[in-house]
Amino acid sequence: MTRILIPTRKLQIMPHNLWHHQSLLLTSGDFNAGKYNCMTIGWGSIGTMWSKPFVQVVVRPTRYTHEFMERYPTFTVCAFGKEFHGDLQLLGTHSGRDDDKLKMTKLTPAASVKVAAPGYAEAELILECQKIYSDIFKPENFIDKTINAKYPLKDYHTVYFGMIEAIYGSESFLGKI
Amino acid sequence: MTRILIPTRKLQIMPHNLWHHQSLLLTSGDFNAGKYNCMTIGWGSIGTMWSKPFVQVVVRPTRYTHEFMERYPTFTVCAFGKEFHGDLQLLGTHSGRDDDKLKMTKLTPAASVKVAAPGYAEAELILECQKIYSDIFKPENFIDKTINAKYPLKDYHTVYFGMIEAIYGSESFLGKI
Repeated sequence: MTRILIPTRKLQIMPHNLWHHQSLLLTSGDFNAGKYNCMTIGWGSIGTMWSKPFVQVVVRPTRYTHEFMERYPTFTVCAFGKEFHGDLQLLGTHSGRDDDKLKMTKLTPAASVKVAAPGYAEAELILECQKIYSDIFKPENFIDKTINAKYPLKDYHTVYFGMIEAIYGSESFLGKI
Repeated sequence: MTRILIPTRKLQIMPHNLWHHQSLLLTSGDFNAGKYNCMTIGWGSIGTMWSKPFVQVVVRPTRYTHEFMERYPTFTVCAFGKEFHGDLQLLGTHSGRDDDKLKMTKLTPAASVKVAAPGYAEAELILECQKIYSDIFKPENFIDKTINAKYPLKDYHTVYFGMIEAIYGSESFLGKI
């Protein structure tokens, strides 16, 4: 996959299509140390916070990736073309606790430029992020009470804000200003 | 301004350009009751949460708009062309407590389609939102300690998640899938 450096100001996306329909791969840990894990995510957002470009992701404490998100300071959020849809499904339904699940896919982890967490050779978009804030969803703050149905196990997500340190992507993510 | 209904999946934006460089207008309240207030915002995000398209905005408790965000269930987030840049600057630096500040601008509040909070005749993008979650930033959760410098008065923002009920915008916000 040919990627170019995308200035944060020029990143162009279809947010709900990207998260909900295409899905993204969240990877946390340290590539050089050989310690990292990934999971497919569909819930999150991209914007600006405290004047910095940022990505918001959420991870349930029951997920293996949660241990990495807590322990390591950086993560990546990556998008892939349709031909990797099956791989993302597998990475969202198998735990890295049980399997070397990446070996069951066509994805090749690769060093990032600015952060220790890896991206992937096949990614069409890589957001390299540094953790700057985290919190936990509180059920008493659900104004829409139907949200409770998403938590039958009461495993409320930890929310992470990552400042975007670098963006690499295909030209389709480069907007015109 | 000619706007079309934009399917949430097809909304296309440059997130950091939209929030940080262009700025947005947050409006909360009830148009028909004549009770609403607005403020210019540059911090927030757009994505998917609990499978719903959503906007995240943040409001300091010291702002007049905070009272409206707490009291009313809906809000809008609107973008404007460059010719309204000065108006957005005014709306971000004057309080609706002191002035009927909208009368000092070229903006015309107008009824929304799905929510009680108004949009504007001149907006090039209107996101109509229903509040579904809120929380407050906690300084002890700032992993990047430089964030503290944004709060010399310790007036930590309230965070609001709004489910996007409808999007109207110029064709430039309609992405291709």
